[in-house]
Formats: sequence, structure tokens, C-alpha cells
Amino acid sequence: MTRAAEPGAARAFRAVDPTTGEALEPAFAVTTPGELRELGRRARAAFRRYARLPGHERAAFLRAVADGLDAAADELVARATRETALPEARLRGEVSRTSGQLRMFAGLIEDDAWLGARVDPGDPARQPAPKPDVRAVRRPLGPVAVFGASNFPFAFSVAGGDTAAALAAGCPVIAKAHPGHPGTSRLVADVVLAAAERTGMPAGVFALALDDGHAVGAALVQLPEVKAVAFTGSRAGGEALMRLAAARPEPVPVYAEMGSVNPVFVLPEAARRRGDAIAEDLHASFTLGVGQFCTNPGVVLLPTGAAGDALAARLAELTRAGQAGTMLNARVCELYQQGRERLRAAGAELLAEGAASAGPTAGTPTLWQAPLDAAMARPELLTEVFGPSTLLLRYARAEQLLAFADALEGQLTATLQAEAEELPAQAELVEALADRAGRLIVNQFPTGVEVGPAMVHGGPWPATSDGRGTSVGTLAIDRFTRWVAYQNFPRELLPPALRG
Amino acid sequence: MTRAAEPGAARAFRAVDPTTGEALEPAFAVTTPGELRELGRRARAAFRRYARLPGHERAAFLRAVADGLDAAADELVARATRETALPEARLRGEVSRTSGQLRMFAGLIEDDAWLGARVDPGDPARQPAPKPDVRAVRRPLGPVAVFGASNFPFAFSVAGGDTAAALAAGCPVIAKAHPGHPGTSRLVADVVLAAAERTGMPAGVFALALDDGHAVGAALVQLPEVKAVAFTGSRAGGEALMRLAAARPEPVPVYAEMGSVNPVFVLPEAARRRGDAIAEDLHASFTLGVGQFCTNPGVVLLPTGAAGDALAARLAELTRAGQAGTMLNARVCELYQQGRERLRAAGAELLAEGAASAGPTAGTPTLWQAPLDAAMARPELLTEVFGPSTLLLRYARAEQLLAFADALEGQLTATLQAEAEELPAQAELVEALADRAGRLIVNQFPTGVEVGPAMVHGGPWPATSDGRGTSVGTLAIDRFTRWVAYQNFPRELLPPALRG
Repeated sequence: MTRAAEPGAARAFRAVDPTTGEALEPAFAVTTPGELRELGRRARAAFRRYARLPGHERAAFLRAVADGLDAAADELVARATRETALPEARLRGEVSRTSGQLRMFAGLIEDDAWLGARVDPGDPARQPAPKPDVRAVRRPLGPVAVFGASNFPFAFSVAGGDTAAALAAGCPVIAKAHPGHPGTSRLVADVVLAAAERTGMPAGVFALALDDGHAVGAALVQLPEVKAVAFTGSRAGGEALMRLAAARPEPVPVYAEMGSVNPVFVLPEAARRRGDAIAEDLHASFTLGVGQFCTNPGVVLLPTGAAGDALAARLAELTRAGQAGTMLNARVCELYQQGRERLRAAGAELLAEGAASAGPTAGTPTLWQAPLDAAMARPELLTEVFGPSTLLLRYARAEQLLAFADALEGQLTATLQAEAEELPAQAELVEALADRAGRLIVNQFPTGVEVGPAMVHGGPWPATSDGRGTSVGTLAIDRFTRWVAYQNFPRELLPPALRG
Repeated sequence: MTRAAEPGAARAFRAVDPTTGEALEPAFAVTTPGELRELGRRARAAFRRYARLPGHERAAFLRAVADGLDAAADELVARATRETALPEARLRGEVSRTSGQLRMFAGLIEDDAWLGARVDPGDPARQPAPKPDVRAVRRPLGPVAVFGASNFPFAFSVAGGDTAAALAAGCPVIAKAHPGHPGTSRLVADVVLAAAERTGMPAGVFALALDDGHAVGAALVQLPEVKAVAFTGSRAGGEALMRLAAARPEPVPVYAEMGSVNPVFVLPEAARRRGDAIAEDLHASFTLGVGQFCTNPGVVLLPTGAAGDALAARLAELTRAGQAGTMLNARVCELYQQGRERLRAAGAELLAEGAASAGPTAGTPTLWQAPLDAAMARPELLTEVFGPSTLLLRYARAEQLLAFADALEGQLTATLQAEAEELPAQAELVEALADRAGRLIVNQFPTGVEVGPAMVHGGPWPATSDGRGTSVGTLAIDRFTRWVAYQNFPRELLPPALRG
């Protein structure tokens, strides 16, 4: 990281290779306050035109971004590998997922159905008063600030799901690059800007802001032109943005996805009949990508007794056979170590650890255990440890599960592993979990978020800042819209979707 | 108003007849902190069962409330007349509107279409990974706090639109009575409670909290069981609730409708050809109900020159012929006087006043005038004066209208009065207004909010705290729901709406 000597002057910073700890060329200039204000003005000016483009023209833009990402995949993946240490195959898949999301939203907005047009015809003869013709349609909010995530340099970053949803809705985007991968962010931004130019989008429809600290992000949220904020990251980061957005002269919505412990409830018969298979799938899920997923299963409810013991033993064996992986950056690694210490201090028993590694940002897979009652009394055991760690909470009686679920805070996901004959008795547990999670899963695992029309990647506080919506799937577009009604309008002045 | 002597002991208060200033029997006990906590616990317990009732059972409850209100209309209107001084005909209409809203929501939830169920079928053969079956549906948020409004003792109060929408969604309601009409609120609450009992709803599905100050409302918003807040009233009140809700350990959404000036743009040809008719309709609209409507047209853009002068003269004539009316209560009247002083101090010219009246809470119709440029420089001219007042802003050139619209803050409504041949040139103005208002109106007036499937009674900050939705019409129900996804669920464990 390099900083210019004079305070207030333009600064620059470099990404750090998490594998070696070395700074990577080139340097990236931190966006200045003046530049940021100009981005706000340009986004506002673009909105006027962009919001009114027919859906198929915005769709062409999104498809051009998708094509550009696919065409640049080699270069993007090479840079992202150096900046994040994520495996190449994973990053290639993530580029495909990102271009796929853009094409999904392009398909969605090809016609106007997503706008939800409502027509309530008038009736001049109605008594006691004539009924007016009233029509309503969704309308984009205005420019949106999108914060890139450390752990998804493509799918939840510069041209990721939030950007795709906002652009699809008709909102210009100012993306804030995550400081962990500025080079990847710059390359992606250049793809978006080239696609915008090629498809004739208004200047200012997209821009990238860069910073290795928090000042630019804070200023971005406070730009008067910004009408919504999207973020994926830590709870501390999300809460800071919420406070800033609420304190603006004009408060704006914040969609912050802040993670959770994603409890997995293993029922007794499932543990007995499929213990080994569950152990293997769980191990794969909690160590996937060095555990750096918001949907990482961080807490597993497992019965006491022989079947649970056997499952735990198999999981311990797999964990010990695993290797430490390189985490995204030094900060993530430091927080992971702190999280492990927090579990230890709260009384969790260390069941197994993988082989350590000498890298500067190595994260070792870790398996913990505690009695379920302990977790009910020690909320530290139920706070997210971002990394390849999971905690087995051993329960003696099924009734404990419902009480545990009733006391849970908001989660992105909750999972049941259960045999068919065990499921009918879980209706109450499912209800309790539906109140506390955005997505409920039976006999699959929470990692791997399907991108589609029914996905909900969200959940009540503190999983997100706004549990009403989702940041993945087509429903994500609704977050960037508001309803507007038109009363007694002549056809030619109505938005096209309301002329029918 | 009567208070018990001992601090901390139960207090009681009485409503005040605004016509006479006299206290009305009986006294109402202020809800104690302990009672309020108990209401929260009961609402939470009710939610567990109520949320799961089939829509048609909740619909039967809403219809029973509607029938109960209609049956009690004489008693309700008699009490409300004494507490609010609103005319009997208006209050009778408002009871009908309120029961109509309840029946509208009952009809909406008779079948499950409103839940927006989405089914994305799985594909085990998909490469590179199998596709899971994912389904999504709306789910109620949990108990909702509803604050009654002073100016609508029925339609925006205890069993008003917010309550109807929340109950329809499956959320128990704790209603906070407006201190101006506790007797009406109590009567309405008793109708709701009787209907809940008659239709077998769980205890705690509805409750009323009372206070003549702010403490009970503040505590209500902070109850951990409350998951959303709905409010119609002043900006100060709405902002206070927003701050409280954001500072909770678990922040919750606040839907506060805080009013606006509802600009009316009179275009030159309309002024020339229909000046008298527009003046008459405007006069009726801004003095309706002693001007005590959120949608009151508080600002009218009128051309300079002969046609505008003639319209202004006719409006002045009508205003002078009008009488002061009794306002809702002493506080509303005091704020109205302060609003008039604010306009005067900001340089508005007093064009005409109605006849004064000797009552303790009389509000005199008032017509003001200022050059449009003055309003652009003096934001005090564009803040709401709640009462029978409107301000003519005279413009010389049509281009001024667009600049004015671009500088407007968020509004509930914006209205164009224009001849057919003037409208095509207003596309830019309509776009600018669509960014700033929840409802756009052509050649009608903003008062009289149609209750239906396409109504939007909302708008960007500061018209509301959350410009994405509406507090009137069927779309209002969505505010009390969140999306939940079910992945790989067996049919029998899915919510009924997702089993198809």
C-alpha cells in the first residue's frame, strides 16, 4: 500500500498478493472528493435518459457487459487469482455466474412484465363520486451505490448481482471497488464502460470509485444523487453504511447483506442412516473456498449418542485430513483467528484441525463442539466466524431444536437434514425457521446459491439490513424501484407499460 | 386532561371537544409500560398461529370488522364528531371507506395470488451441477405497530388502511390511538376485538394502546416483538419514529406518511379556457375538511398575465366568501397559525381570507401569492401548511416549471391542469414529477384518494419515510411481508401456496 506524502493530495494504493504478502502493480489512485461529486452529477444526468430507455435497450447493454466479461475471462481470472488467492476454477465459474446473472436480468427486462403494471379503469357514472382511472407501475429509484465484496470479486462486486439488478431496473450505478481487488475491479469496470459506449448508453450510467480506506465509501453513501445503497460484507461495514444513510438529509434505503451462521439441523434418523454422507457433504460445504461464503454452515445441530458421535468422528477425520488454505487477505485472516479465539473463550471444545500452512494469510479448517444448552447461554457461540470453521452443537432431545430456533437471530439460511419419516413432525420447527431465515433447505447444503426467479438471498436482521428482499435472483430488481400512480392520464403521456 | 398525582402511577386523560374546548367523558387510562410489554408478548404469541391461518379465515375476520364498523356507524360517528369536529357526512363516508378497505383486503387474500408464489423447478441432470428445486413466497413480518392519524379517525386510524393491510398480511396489530380521538379509537378497537373473538382469531391478534403524550408510542416502537411500524402524521412525528426504529437492537422498517405541498401546475391554456372552473375546483379541494388532508393542494403554479390574474381573482373571491372551520384540535390550529406566519415571513402576499370565527380552534381559509422565483429561493414557501391554505406561485415562462419540478422535494402527489394540446409538450415535466411524487394527476385534483389496486399513496422523502410503497390500496399489503425461499422441500412441508 503506497500513500502520497501530503495529506489531502491524491493518494494511490496497490493490491496485495495474499499468498506472498507482496504489493502488486499497478498503483490505483484513490478517488478524490471532487471526482466523486462529479460521478454523482454524471449519474444523475444519466438517470434522466437511462430510466426512460426501453427495456430491450438496457438489456442489450447488460448482454454486452456479459459478453465482455466472458471474452475477458482469462485476463480477469488471472488478475483475480493474484488479488484474492481464490482457485482459478472457482474464479472461472464465478465469471460465468456473473455473466449469467447479467443475461438473466437482460431476459427479465426484455418485456415489461417485471414492471408489474396495474390498471384500474375509471367509471364516470359511479355513485356517490365518479371513479378515476388509476394506473401504477414500478419506476427506478435513481443512482445506486454498490459496494464490492471481498469474497466474490465478480458475482458480488463491480458487475455483480446488485449492479446487474440496479442497471436492469434503470438505475445508474457507482460501484465502490473492494480494496482487496482493485485491479480486478478496474478491469471489470472497463468492460462495463466499453459495453455502455458500444450500446449507446448515456455517459455516467456506470462509474468506479476506488479507495483503500473508508472515506470514499462514506462520501459515496452521502452523495445527494445516490438513492439507494447495496453492500455485501461484514456486519460492522453494513451497520456503518446504515448509520450514514439514515443520517442523510434525505435518508435512502440500504441493502446490506452481512452474513450469518446458517444453522444445519441434523435429525436423529438422518444422523443414523446417512452419517458418513452428511459428514462428507458438510465438510465440503464448510471448507469450500476456505470457508469464505456468507452461506457457510457455521453451526450444526447434532444429536448426542452413538450416531451423532460417529458423524462427529467422521467430520473430525475429514477436517484433520484437510489443509489450511490461503484466505482473501490479511484482514480476513486476522478476523478468522479472532473468531476462533472467541469460540475457544466461550467454551467450545476443539474437535479437530487441519494441517497448518506457513503462508501469511493461511486459514486452517477447524471443527468445534459444544452442548446445545451452552450455545443458548453464550451468544458468542452463535456469531459468524468467517472462514473454514464449524461448530457442532449437541442436542439430547428434539424439543431443544424448537427452543433454539425460536431464540435464533436472523439468518440467510437454515437447513434440515432429515429422513422422510422425520419431516412431518418438523412443521413447527420449519415455521420457526421461516421467521428467522431467508432460505430454508431440506437435505441439501446452504453453500451454492442458485441464481433464479425464486431465490431469496436475504433474511431478517442481522443477516441483512432489510429482510424484505433478496440480493440474488430476479426479485433483487424490485429493491431498486418504487411505485408511481398515474391518475386520469392521456394515453400518450403514460409510461409505455401503462398504455395497454 | 386529567393526570393522577403520583408520578409513575397509572394516568388517565380525556378527549377535548375542539368546538368548545371542553373535556369529554369518559377518562381513558394511559397504557402502562407493563401492559404494553404484555401486549407485545401476546401479539408475538398470536403471530405464530395467525400467520398460518388460511387467507379465507383472515378474510372472515376482516369482513366481521367491516360489518361491525358499519353496524356501529351511528355511535362511531357521534363520538368522532365530538372529538374531531369533522362534519357528520364526512365521517359517515369515512366509516364506509374504512369498512370498504377491510373488505377489499378480505377479497385480496381469499385466494393466494397476492402471495406471489414462485416455483423454479429443479433439474438433477443439469451440468456442471444439479439444479435444486427453489420456491419463494411472501411471508408476514410479525406484529405491526400502527399509529392513528388525527385527521382520519377511521380510515387512517385504529382499523384503517395500515391495520387492514397488516392484518390481511398475517401480522397482528398493536394500534396506538391518536390522543385527539381516544373515545372513537376505543369504540373501533372494541369492534375489532369483538370480530376477532367471533371469528375465532388468536388472542392478541389486535390490541389498543392509549396515551396523551409520546411515551407509550416510543415504547411501542421499541418493543422487541414489533417488526414494522406504520404512521400517518407530521414530519416531526415520523422522523422521531424513524430514529427510534433505527436505534433498536434489531432495526425495523417504518412506513411514515408525513404529508407534502402537492403542487398543482396550471398551464396557460387551461387557465385561459377553464379559469373559473379550475378556481372553483381548487377552492373546494384546498378547503375540503378545513384543509386537513395530506393531499391538500398547498401550492399552485399559475401563469402571470390576464388569464392567471382572472383565475386568482376568482379564487380570492371564493376564499373571501368562505368561513373559518373548526380544526381537529388546538395543536393543529396552533400549527396552522404558525404555518401562516411562516408564509407571511417568507414574503408571501396575502390575497384573500375567509370570514373568521370565534371558536377556540377555528381555521380561516387563506389564499397567498408569490412569484415562482421567490419560492425557488425560499424553501419555507414550499413546506406544508396543514390547513385551508394555498399559495399561488406565478410563473412567466413554461421553462420555469421544469426547473421548479427538478428542485422539488418528495411529494405525495403532483397535478397538471392542462388542455389536450398542451399535454404533449409536458413529457419532460411529467418525467421530473414522476421522480418526485407517488401519484401524478391530470385534470383532476389530489384530494380524494381512490382506494384500489393501482393507488399509490406514498412518495419520496420527505413525503414518506420509505418512498417504495403505498399506504392506500392493495399494494399496501406488500409492506408487511418479506420473501422466503424453500429449497428441495417435500410438498407436505411447503406453505400451501407453494404446493402447486
